[in-house]
Amino acid sequence: MEQVAWIAVDWGTSNCRAWAMSEANEVVAEATSDKGMGQLERDGFEPALLDVIGDWLSSGTMDIFACGMVGSRQGWIEAGYRSVPCTPLDTGFAVPRVCDTRLRVRVVPGLKQENPPDVMRGEETQIAGFLDRSPDFDGVLCLPGTHAKWVQISAGEVVSFRTFMTGELFAAISRQTVLRHSLGEGWNESAFAEAVADALARPESLAHRLFTIRAEGLIANLAPAEATARLSGLLIGAELAASRPYWLGQRVALIADGTLARRYDTALGLQGVQPALVSVEEMTLAGLSAARAGAKETTP
Amino acid sequence: MEQVAWIAVDWGTSNCRAWAMSEANEVVAEATSDKGMGQLERDGFEPALLDVIGDWLSSGTMDIFACGMVGSRQGWIEAGYRSVPCTPLDTGFAVPRVCDTRLRVRVVPGLKQENPPDVMRGEETQIAGFLDRSPDFDGVLCLPGTHAKWVQISAGEVVSFRTFMTGELFAAISRQTVLRHSLGEGWNESAFAEAVADALARPESLAHRLFTIRAEGLIANLAPAEATARLSGLLIGAELAASRPYWLGQRVALIADGTLARRYDTALGLQGVQPALVSVEEMTLAGLSAARAGAKETTP
Repeated sequence: MEQVAWIAVDWGTSNCRAWAMSEANEVVAEATSDKGMGQLERDGFEPALLDVIGDWLSSGTMDIFACGMVGSRQGWIEAGYRSVPCTPLDTGFAVPRVCDTRLRVRVVPGLKQENPPDVMRGEETQIAGFLDRSPDFDGVLCLPGTHAKWVQISAGEVVSFRTFMTGELFAAISRQTVLRHSLGEGWNESAFAEAVADALARPESLAHRLFTIRAEGLIANLAPAEATARLSGLLIGAELAASRPYWLGQRVALIADGTLARRYDTALGLQGVQPALVSVEEMTLAGLSAARAGAKETTP
Repeated sequence: MEQVAWIAVDWGTSNCRAWAMSEANEVVAEATSDKGMGQLERDGFEPALLDVIGDWLSSGTMDIFACGMVGSRQGWIEAGYRSVPCTPLDTGFAVPRVCDTRLRVRVVPGLKQENPPDVMRGEETQIAGFLDRSPDFDGVLCLPGTHAKWVQISAGEVVSFRTFMTGELFAAISRQTVLRHSLGEGWNESAFAEAVADALARPESLAHRLFTIRAEGLIANLAPAEATARLSGLLIGAELAASRPYWLGQRVALIADGTLARRYDTALGLQGVQPALVSVEEMTLAGLSAARAGAKETTP
């Protein structure tokens, strides 16, 4: 194995991903654990991390840069929130106490906005990675997910942002409501497109349109794949209706992978927006690499 | 105990309520079980019913009129849906097979609407009870709940209706999303009123406004009681935004009890609507009494 110079960690609510990195910020190895922040007590983080990265350690001290919910109040150490407008990263990391002297862990703070009140944690690192690659970008970033973010960027700073609970609503509605009987595997592109258009035209009708999925399942044999596409389209369409000032006539980059990237790309395309597509993992690693570079500059 | 002439049953997804009724449709006794439709297989309904009403039976045949999810496809017997426009009840009951010959069970069908697709099951009985008491009512009924209904009534018929998943969204969001960390006991009337107004003004922003509850909890110490009132206000306000044609300038009656009645009454009052308040239980019993009267007329 190539020499491991440092370790990048993306530690969210439901899992922990780690990458062994070379001095040139290339991925040497990677590992994942399902020990997310959500199931750990404060003294459980260090052993959970050692389980994932233990093989990459030698006798010396290893620098570890971590982002995500690991820095929340319920996490390993509270890394706080920096106030926008600001750069996505600075060098004020939170440093949890560790027993194993080989570990030197730094946790990236989140960002907050006073008005309207909003917070992010984890996305700031992807944004930092994006700006490290595209320092002159002026426009809007869309980061879909559990708590989707729309972020306005200017002159290397996060100017403002807005969070939508789209992903979490999709999960809660599809698992915990009567719609779970109507949804199923598969996809229907035209049902998705129609639902996006419908939500944009009548965004106030969401709670009603959701129930029509169930009703059509009962009385008109709506196919499960069509039902799933329609639920997704209604929620993404509602998000686009409320985030319109963020994308209308703007330069948009979409930080997303796989299914979510395709769905948002399609929905935005229907509104005449052609976002640049950027990988989440790449941006996370670029952001943590930038965090490390910043820390080195300020370390005597 | 006064003579039991028949038994009324409201059998929903999560519980089963039964009332022993006199010949004059007065309540003689009542009983409840948590054996809702949701946890019963088809052959579990008869024993579950006998557990609840067994004490009220004598050697003769007992007429039992039931409404609710007991008549759904996953229920005791599928009672189908009648198409609106139509009266809320007719005499086409579904009759499940029973082993105990003392039981003569009739299940009330639901209502369906082809366009836009919609269904109700259980509410048709409350509507029938309401129209039995107020046969000349011309206007709109609001029935809050898991699947809130807005129903247009004219000339004794259900003309059209619209369902909103407001109650089920409240439950899923407050239990299954990150907002569960921010909500708590108690209530804040002005936070509720502000949220209703906010949702009516910008109904498209729901998924964003929901997250601000979490963000304000984290960075501005939003009180748990205020957070709960705001979630409720946002969801009821969004429902009012989409049901506006149903209540604006209309005569409205609200079939609801307790907390839900107060919240909808307040929210409608803020829009200048003063609904008549009607009890759910009274309307259910009046509706099942009307079902029994109809059955007697058509029984030779």
